[in-house]
Amino acid sequence: MRYSTGRTNCGTLVPANPRERAMTRQMKVAAAQLGPVARTESREQVVKRLLELMREAKGWGVDVVVYPELALTTFFPRWLIDVEEELDEWFEADMPNAATQPLFEEARNLGIGFHLGYAEIAYEGNIKRRFNTAIIVDKKGDIVGRFRKVHIPGHHEVLERPGQHLEKRYFDVGDMGFPVYRAFGAICGMAICNDRRWPETWRVMGLQGVEMVFCGYNTPVGLGDSFDLDALSPFHNLLCFQAGCYQNATWAVGVAKAGCEEGFNMIGQSCIVAPSGEVVAMCSTVEDELIVHGCNMELSRDYKRDIFNFAYHRRPEHYGLIVERTGAEPPPA
Amino acid sequence: MRYSTGRTNCGTLVPANPRERAMTRQMKVAAAQLGPVARTESREQVVKRLLELMREAKGWGVDVVVYPELALTTFFPRWLIDVEEELDEWFEADMPNAATQPLFEEARNLGIGFHLGYAEIAYEGNIKRRFNTAIIVDKKGDIVGRFRKVHIPGHHEVLERPGQHLEKRYFDVGDMGFPVYRAFGAICGMAICNDRRWPETWRVMGLQGVEMVFCGYNTPVGLGDSFDLDALSPFHNLLCFQAGCYQNATWAVGVAKAGCEEGFNMIGQSCIVAPSGEVVAMCSTVEDELIVHGCNMELSRDYKRDIFNFAYHRRPEHYGLIVERTGAEPPPA
Repeated sequence: MRYSTGRTNCGTLVPANPRERAMTRQMKVAAAQLGPVARTESREQVVKRLLELMREAKGWGVDVVVYPELALTTFFPRWLIDVEEELDEWFEADMPNAATQPLFEEARNLGIGFHLGYAEIAYEGNIKRRFNTAIIVDKKGDIVGRFRKVHIPGHHEVLERPGQHLEKRYFDVGDMGFPVYRAFGAICGMAICNDRRWPETWRVMGLQGVEMVFCGYNTPVGLGDSFDLDALSPFHNLLCFQAGCYQNATWAVGVAKAGCEEGFNMIGQSCIVAPSGEVVAMCSTVEDELIVHGCNMELSRDYKRDIFNFAYHRRPEHYGLIVERTGAEPPPA
Repeated sequence: MRYSTGRTNCGTLVPANPRERAMTRQMKVAAAQLGPVARTESREQVVKRLLELMREAKGWGVDVVVYPELALTTFFPRWLIDVEEELDEWFEADMPNAATQPLFEEARNLGIGFHLGYAEIAYEGNIKRRFNTAIIVDKKGDIVGRFRKVHIPGHHEVLERPGQHLEKRYFDVGDMGFPVYRAFGAICGMAICNDRRWPETWRVMGLQGVEMVFCGYNTPVGLGDSFDLDALSPFHNLLCFQAGCYQNATWAVGVAKAGCEEGFNMIGQSCIVAPSGEVVAMCSTVEDELIVHGCNMELSRDYKRDIFNFAYHRRPEHYGLIVERTGAEPPPA
């Protein structure tokens, strides 16, 4: 704990009574990293792996176990799939469904929440829409939060290179913004993969008082990027989590699907990051692996009251371009 | 250089001809960190130190030398000054003025630009306004850019603690937003100290195509913060520069006034950070110290074309809260 509990130079802001600190809200979280999922692996097989990690998390007394983005299948956007029925096979029309029902039941049985990413088909009237989606499920097995990925990365068109990243082709842009939900005694938000690179993602949740962000990702390397982004990919992963947490005074749980999947490597580094920006837990493999941390939610409150007291310090009158402009417009030469 | 110059898997985006890379725009920059400035030290004495660093920079063949925030005096906001005439003494009514004229002349003589932070008095009609200001001066000794700090940190009121941070009392909020300027063959922006912690600062410049950010700072520790921010202060300094650079595909030069000044320590870590977020040069003392780097401005272009191609990836329709709301508003309990 980073707090002085005795008398300090500052006086007013620090509780002098250690018992006040003892009443700290704690959220015990687990990041449940997945190793590769083969193209031929069924939902049922993957759910078995998820259940094993859930039980391991329960053994730690965890409140919520956080699974990756698109956790139920291999990362299919690396391939061109141009037959609609084939594409549909990678998506879930219902949640829960037959394959994922055991997860919801086990959550209820064990009294543990979870966060899960999956490919969602949703209908608006007759229009079929496809989202890269994540949900929060509470300890009763009920869905209490939903998010649809906003910053869809990759390309729409097929590029001449070893691996594709066709998320822009397969997914609609999320239509929910960045909602937050009260769950597990805290204010929880969600981001998915590429969303974490965009400070707007974090700030919009920060402006709703977010205290805990769940963020799954699949971050492939070796797809043939034009410059050496691959080597820096693990660094950028942590940088974005650390900056997002610090600048918004929130905890985050980042969870990878990792390892060599169908011939392409994906980074690991599933991590739990404090409102200080410090990485307090991190996976050491690129396989199925669980890490846990007891998150002191008061840390978030302290940063929000001080250096990131938005009401006291922010100056939205100077932020207009952030919403007025999409692309960069350099000044006249 | 991070580029493949030969054949790669990707083909189109990588110049196959090494001569194309040889035409790279380069900006040679120096961060001119200052050690402590005593309360009794005159402008003229400080300018002598600045001139020495400028000449050292010229010895490296540098295009622009970057000085810290409020570089001409000690960091006076650590004290309560409630007599207006006394306060005025820490501010500059004109720039250049008698004390700083030698800097402008030497810049012209040597053919080197500079960036300088200082406390500015400006009149709007009869109204005296006080800004924490920085300027860009070109190689002809002309002021070609100006910025007034937007995110004023600290407090307005005097706190019961060992050191004050009364910037909110002494400075008006900058009234210029975050302008960028074409200088030294690139698009240059500015931020001052606390501005660097706010992703909005970086993004508003990023949306104007910024390629190089100059940012001076005085970051005191030991003022009596309520929790252990002090120990993390150097980490947070680098984190903000690295995230701001990466997420906006820009270079930055961060420059401290550092060391033990009038009994209070200020962090050093003056740094030059690449669009990759990597720290490519950093001071190793808390004294007057110069570091240099030849910045390949094409790196910025490459990131802007790809992962941080704003026009392709940003979704302002979901960013509304950033300008609609100043403080955080948690959802109903």
